Amino acid sequence: MLGTPLLPEIRELIERRNFSALQRIFNDWLPVDLAELISDLPENEQAILFRLLPKDVATETFEYLDLDSQQNLLEALTQKDVTHILNSMSADDRTALLEELPGNVTQELLRLLSFKEFKIAKTLLAYAEDSVGRLMSPDYLSVKKDWNINQVLEYIRTYGHESETLNVIYVVDDHGKLKGELMARELLLSSPEKKIRDIVSEDKIVTLTATQDQKDALDAFKKYDTVALPVVDSNGYLIGIVTVDDMLDVAEEEETEDIQKFGGIEALEEPYIDLPIPQLIKKRAVWLVVLFIGEMLTASAMAFFEEELAKAIVLATFIPLIISSGGNSGSQAATLIIRSLALGEITIRDWWNVMRREIISGMALGGLLGLIGVFRVIVWAMVFGQLTMQWVYMSLTVGISLVGIVLFGTLAGSMLPLLLQHWGLDPATSSAPFVATLVDVTGIVIYFSVASLLLGGILL
Amino acid sequence: MLGTPLLPEIRELIERRNFSALQRIFNDWLPVDLAELISDLPENEQAILFRLLPKDVATETFEYLDLDSQQNLLEALTQKDVTHILNSMSADDRTALLEELPGNVTQELLRLLSFKEFKIAKTLLAYAEDSVGRLMSPDYLSVKKDWNINQVLEYIRTYGHESETLNVIYVVDDHGKLKGELMARELLLSSPEKKIRDIVSEDKIVTLTATQDQKDALDAFKKYDTVALPVVDSNGYLIGIVTVDDMLDVAEEEETEDIQKFGGIEALEEPYIDLPIPQLIKKRAVWLVVLFIGEMLTASAMAFFEEELAKAIVLATFIPLIISSGGNSGSQAATLIIRSLALGEITIRDWWNVMRREIISGMALGGLLGLIGVFRVIVWAMVFGQLTMQWVYMSLTVGISLVGIVLFGTLAGSMLPLLLQHWGLDPATSSAPFVATLVDVTGIVIYFSVASLLLGGILL
Repeated sequence: MLGTPLLPEIRELIERRNFSALQRIFNDWLPVDLAELISDLPENEQAILFRLLPKDVATETFEYLDLDSQQNLLEALTQKDVTHILNSMSADDRTALLEELPGNVTQELLRLLSFKEFKIAKTLLAYAEDSVGRLMSPDYLSVKKDWNINQVLEYIRTYGHESETLNVIYVVDDHGKLKGELMARELLLSSPEKKIRDIVSEDKIVTLTATQDQKDALDAFKKYDTVALPVVDSNGYLIGIVTVDDMLDVAEEEETEDIQKFGGIEALEEPYIDLPIPQLIKKRAVWLVVLFIGEMLTASAMAFFEEELAKAIVLATFIPLIISSGGNSGSQAATLIIRSLALGEITIRDWWNVMRREIISGMALGGLLGLIGVFRVIVWAMVFGQLTMQWVYMSLTVGISLVGIVLFGTLAGSMLPLLLQHWGLDPATSSAPFVATLVDVTGIVIYFSVASLLLGGILL
Repeated sequence: MLGTPLLPEIRELIERRNFSALQRIFNDWLPVDLAELISDLPENEQAILFRLLPKDVATETFEYLDLDSQQNLLEALTQKDVTHILNSMSADDRTALLEELPGNVTQELLRLLSFKEFKIAKTLLAYAEDSVGRLMSPDYLSVKKDWNINQVLEYIRTYGHESETLNVIYVVDDHGKLKGELMARELLLSSPEKKIRDIVSEDKIVTLTATQDQKDALDAFKKYDTVALPVVDSNGYLIGIVTVDDMLDVAEEEETEDIQKFGGIEALEEPYIDLPIPQLIKKRAVWLVVLFIGEMLTASAMAFFEEELAKAIVLATFIPLIISSGGNSGSQAATLIIRSLALGEITIRDWWNVMRREIISGMALGGLLGLIGVFRVIVWAMVFGQLTMQWVYMSLTVGISLVGIVLFGTLAGSMLPLLLQHWGLDPATSSAPFVATLVDVTGIVIYFSVASLLLGGILL
């Protein structure tokens, strides 16, 4: 059931307090759809609807809600309901909620947990932000090597209800050391008498540690195409698992950071719309000021050519057109190369191949814009009835400068990310604005140099 | 086992033809790691190593290889090996390979398939590119409602080996109409005598159709956090399944398209490094020319103010500095808003909230750059010992223009994506270069207008 549920009808039923009709409707809905509906309601109606849900559906629905709605419900529900939800929601989702709340609220909520859940929550919150530990769940099933499939199946039926996933069962020795993974597929395909030791192999286990960066976990999930990975301590003891559903969020966060960096902004830690305005300004100001100070070089470069400018004001007219073309072609090249690096399509070793492609592309694109530029200047002069040799030379100055600047733009835009990668820095730092600023300064020098050469004795 | 395998050692063993040592090493490796190793080898060594793998490992390894290595192996291996691989690889991965090969090669390879596999491959290739059908696999298990869990388990052990996933089993009626999904979790947790009809519900099935866009499938997977989705025809008959592992590739492709659009390039259909240079140029030329023609307006605007320019050449000196600041702040705003829209953090309905935030941010950032600008002009004048009232007014012109232009940049950068979304267009079209061009033209008008007001009678 994809698509938006019938919000107006639902709201009317809420207004008419027709709760039995609502309960009948919701009976057919998935928790994820219920969560979407609740998020779309005004805050005061969210709790009304939420209280109508059966207890187990309520907890799962709560896990799917965005942080704002979760916070709103925590305030609006009775302490009894909140206690039930916090104790029954999965440990990793609970950590994600608690880590975002103000410290005093977190403390208050922790007190509502049972002793067992309190200990789990405390342990998980003790791991650093953005570490694997914060995503970890202690709810997994582990079995022993000398069990057979039938014993495992029995064990799952008895103890599996709490487990975060049943797609993987972990094999441990008597001390809790991880000895292998039993995939649901192997479990289901093997004959009931087969022993675990004959199915699983110790060699091929991919593990995470709780202190690792979440980005590493993401890379491992991407590479091994798996639904869950075990987390072990430094001695190889199994302490929790991470499931793939949490990875989508990590991937989204990483991607957002990259995109923001490329747009010339420090990565925001919160959604744009929730970030306090002073912080929003600060995140943008740093790069904006750096770029501004860099761009001041254009004023110095222009001042250096003031004499030429004074002789031929018309030169100034084309400056924005010319330098922006360098910036645009540079942004294009940087975008292509940064993305290709991120996808692993190219590595630093391909630098010559990239450079060759960019030289050809830059010449072609520069030539194209140059031709249009020449055409533009000549038509302009003709329209105003002043097509003299001076204008022909002027048009050539614009055309040749464009070739040089677009070529420089594509080269700077493509080589800078590779250089940054080579120096161990993040290629995405060579943002579109950064490349544009670099190319602006160079563009002015190229333009006036071409002008001096071509127009010396004519206009200059 | 994350990280790069020991490439030099492996290559030495290949050179020394020590195949038994290689086979011993590879015994412990996962197919995904073997694939990574093979991709890193020179083309002539890839087949040598590949032939050392046991048959079933070979097919799985082949599925993980990139397209280039796959093509290379298809050429280097014997027809017998190729026949085995093509017949035993999973149908969706095979479709992905066949759709990328030249038509005549695809025809040749199709002839190597058994009659059954040939029919499947032909059917899947008949669906449109980027449609769900191309990702579909016909290898799933389906069971009947009146079976009990024990019967299902027996059925899986007998027929499950070919199935693409065992995490979901599909429930169909006697005619093949989809009636429900049995998750591995439910299967494993239910007691052996329980009937399927008591576990699965028909109401809550999320389905895809073969002709749907792959992007829709991605959205459904993201929303429902599931490992597989059934594909049905218009009458509700189950015709295949799509598994989540294919979604990572779709997500990556979609994301790449968005990033390229934002960088002002038409989406490339192939990796940067594989795209023929003429096509690479074409993909970039369209936007570059459009932007160039738009940017021509700057020349017209400058020509309009030529009189002012002639009186005060110094005005020209600051043009690149001023307009680029507008472009940079515009790129920042566009990046933030496009990403927030994509993540669903904001919708068009938030436009006023966004505008309010951007007005405050724009004023603050513009004020900051303005102050730095005033400072720069005055210090510059002092250094050259010509700090006159004219220079003070000049500095104010630069400062006030910066406030106006940065404010306009943030507003244009933030509102344009919202407008595009409102008009049903892709917000990512308001690329960084596009916003920068728009702001350049306006920036010149703002700058010269402020100059006319402040410098009239002084410099102008």
